[in-house]
Amino acid sequence: MRLQSTHVDTRHLRELLADGNTAAAAELAFALTPTELADLLVRLGPTELALLESHLGTERIADAVAELDPSEAARLLVRFSRAEAADILEEMEPDDATDVVEELGEGEAEHILAEMRSADAEEIRELLAYPPQTAGGRMTPDFVAISPGLTVAAAMRLIRAQAPDAETIYYVYVTDRYNRLQGVVSLRDLVLAEPRQLIADVMRRQVIHVPAAADQEQAARLLLDHNLLALPVVDYQGRLLGVITIDDVADVLEEEATEDIEKLGGSQPLEEPYLSASMFQIFRKRIVWLLVLFLAATQTSTVISIFSLELEHVVALSFFIPLLIGTGGNVGSQIVTTVVRAMAVGEVRFTHLWRVLGRELVICLVVGLVMAAATMIRAGTMNLDLGIAVSAALAALFIVLWAGSVAAMLPMVLRRLGLDPAVMSAPLITTFVDGTGLLIYFLIARAVLNL
Amino acid sequence: MRLQSTHVDTRHLRELLADGNTAAAAELAFALTPTELADLLVRLGPTELALLESHLGTERIADAVAELDPSEAARLLVRFSRAEAADILEEMEPDDATDVVEELGEGEAEHILAEMRSADAEEIRELLAYPPQTAGGRMTPDFVAISPGLTVAAAMRLIRAQAPDAETIYYVYVTDRYNRLQGVVSLRDLVLAEPRQLIADVMRRQVIHVPAAADQEQAARLLLDHNLLALPVVDYQGRLLGVITIDDVADVLEEEATEDIEKLGGSQPLEEPYLSASMFQIFRKRIVWLLVLFLAATQTSTVISIFSLELEHVVALSFFIPLLIGTGGNVGSQIVTTVVRAMAVGEVRFTHLWRVLGRELVICLVVGLVMAAATMIRAGTMNLDLGIAVSAALAALFIVLWAGSVAAMLPMVLRRLGLDPAVMSAPLITTFVDGTGLLIYFLIARAVLNL
Repeated sequence: MRLQSTHVDTRHLRELLADGNTAAAAELAFALTPTELADLLVRLGPTELALLESHLGTERIADAVAELDPSEAARLLVRFSRAEAADILEEMEPDDATDVVEELGEGEAEHILAEMRSADAEEIRELLAYPPQTAGGRMTPDFVAISPGLTVAAAMRLIRAQAPDAETIYYVYVTDRYNRLQGVVSLRDLVLAEPRQLIADVMRRQVIHVPAAADQEQAARLLLDHNLLALPVVDYQGRLLGVITIDDVADVLEEEATEDIEKLGGSQPLEEPYLSASMFQIFRKRIVWLLVLFLAATQTSTVISIFSLELEHVVALSFFIPLLIGTGGNVGSQIVTTVVRAMAVGEVRFTHLWRVLGRELVICLVVGLVMAAATMIRAGTMNLDLGIAVSAALAALFIVLWAGSVAAMLPMVLRRLGLDPAVMSAPLITTFVDGTGLLIYFLIARAVLNL
Repeated sequence: MRLQSTHVDTRHLRELLADGNTAAAAELAFALTPTELADLLVRLGPTELALLESHLGTERIADAVAELDPSEAARLLVRFSRAEAADILEEMEPDDATDVVEELGEGEAEHILAEMRSADAEEIRELLAYPPQTAGGRMTPDFVAISPGLTVAAAMRLIRAQAPDAETIYYVYVTDRYNRLQGVVSLRDLVLAEPRQLIADVMRRQVIHVPAAADQEQAARLLLDHNLLALPVVDYQGRLLGVITIDDVADVLEEEATEDIEKLGGSQPLEEPYLSASMFQIFRKRIVWLLVLFLAATQTSTVISIFSLELEHVVALSFFIPLLIGTGGNVGSQIVTTVVRAMAVGEVRFTHLWRVLGRELVICLVVGLVMAAATMIRAGTMNLDLGIAVSAALAALFIVLWAGSVAAMLPMVLRRLGLDPAVMSAPLITTFVDGTGLLIYFLIARAVLNL
């Protein structure tokens, strides 16, 4: 029995490889989990990789490659010979292999596919036709399908024969002679059924399924909502094309959450893991929003310059500029992230608009009063005029209310317009509140101080 | 065969219930998925609930209740009679039922547990002992365990007998007479094995498992990394206590991502879904950080007041205050969210500190030069002095570099100190950069303009 993780010293293992002691290195590598082995492989050169592969066998290498992000896997694969790369792809699940082939250059991909068994290469070529973010792009064609006229005993024999190739045998799909989905039967049901019963009598006829063009997130949510281990993917005529298994769902959810977090932080989402993305890619994903935000923020300098006479008169007004717009931005950021996430997990919909807005206005009223009090106290500690203190405190209240209403409504309005609510990032709401918040502040100050 | 969702008109269904036409309503309700039924149940009153339950049966109601967030489920459950509530909890998986019982008031929980079958109530009482965020708090005690001396055929008979109660029969655990975990065998392996083989000969002896006290996120990652459908949970002596199944993993991942997003947005995470949390709860989760951030932001007013003579002299310097600190905050927010997420999914660790910092400094150098150019252009459109323009542009460059290095390092340093990196929220980095950014700006301006 083994504890969670072996923590094999990969440095020692690499030294063994460097010393030509491949057998000893391979023995250590055998104890690694696929994830750990993958971590090791990406650090090795072509010679070491070839040596290790010959000792460990293609299957273990393939399991490890499947754990990597597709772009990393592609970079690793080209360090093997094309024949080895083809062997590794053959051993992988076709859906995982397709993701990797997609990341290879087109020429390189063709060369490697040409080295593969034609049946395996054909499967990958078919899967390449579906965009990677769709149900079709996530599915594997390796499922078990049987006809409704079989007995349970006959079905079990068929499953035993197909099991080594299928990604899951826990669900067996029932199809007619046109390959149209008719029902589903779980291995659990089969084990519990009488051997002589007909599949047609034990199968469930209500099969939850998705069309191949559906978004991968929709497929993932469907699988989760119905507590399934796999979800069949069909074409427009209801023919069974493949299945999406539960292990893909976690990947989809992680990907989507990462995208949302990066967007909420004010970047365009990276298509690769942070450490494998090139610096130029990261730069490109960030600079777009930074420039948009800069352009939006130039309104702040316009507002300040309009009120520069007042500022020249009462320089102390400027003390509160960052404090007030900062508070507005913080409130906006809190609300935007909460609402966008609640929408992403399906808790909040457009029909909740007025309810959300009502709640947020009440909360912001209390928050605004607290922040106004805090601002008064701060003005007191700086020994400022009462007029300035009151102006800043009133501005705090109204800026919080304003930031709150905008932040509560915009994500839902964006979704309603067919846009991604996560575009409404923390930096965007902060920038928006900066300019309008200054306007609120100076207008209040002008009125209170009679400027 | 049914398409994704039935979209039964729940309004019509509620009208039928109100008219006393329970049979017709129940017929419509039969077509609902558990999630849809749950959506309906939370809107019904005690009388309607009791009627619907008598027609639909407890099992369907229990499936629907299991789809709700535990706090919502608890609020729904108390609208049933205690006897009905007890029946519903009995039908639920013990781990899900425990989550709900935890949300009931203690007195109410005891009353309902007293109405339950004592074996079921005992299971829940035992699970209540484990904190909800741990592996123990997530596990179900309903697994199938067999002894290694059985034949495959005998094991299959045993599984058939236990299947109706077990949460999963796809993995069967092998234990010795002290209930210590010895191995695991999948239903797939059993189906493929010869009936006369011994379990000891077909089982895998390397069993990935977690201690009951382990964090639920660690358990979820382990399950995913090894592509398992279930993960055994053991006590300190290696005795099998329960299993965590893959359907729990998605919940854990969603919960953790939501928590991270709310933290990154600058709130303490809510313990309930946004719409079911009370306004006071939301207020409490937000005001703490707002006040901390306000306190941190008072540094900005100090910095500005220190330089108020310079500002009085050159009011135009104030035009750039929000623009510069805003840009610093945006860069910081982009980096913090990306790095915190990369750490959460395990891509970035403390050992990557220098690599991350090096990359971010290079990227920020380019970003800083672009933003400096943008600042120069903006100063040009406002017809400002060259000195002011140069001061602001230089400040843009240095503020971006400063914000970038802080944002790249702090999350990793926090993790190293045993703190949660997501504490380093977008608002926190923004506030931090506000004060220090102003200092950078005014010091540069003083030097360039000879103030």
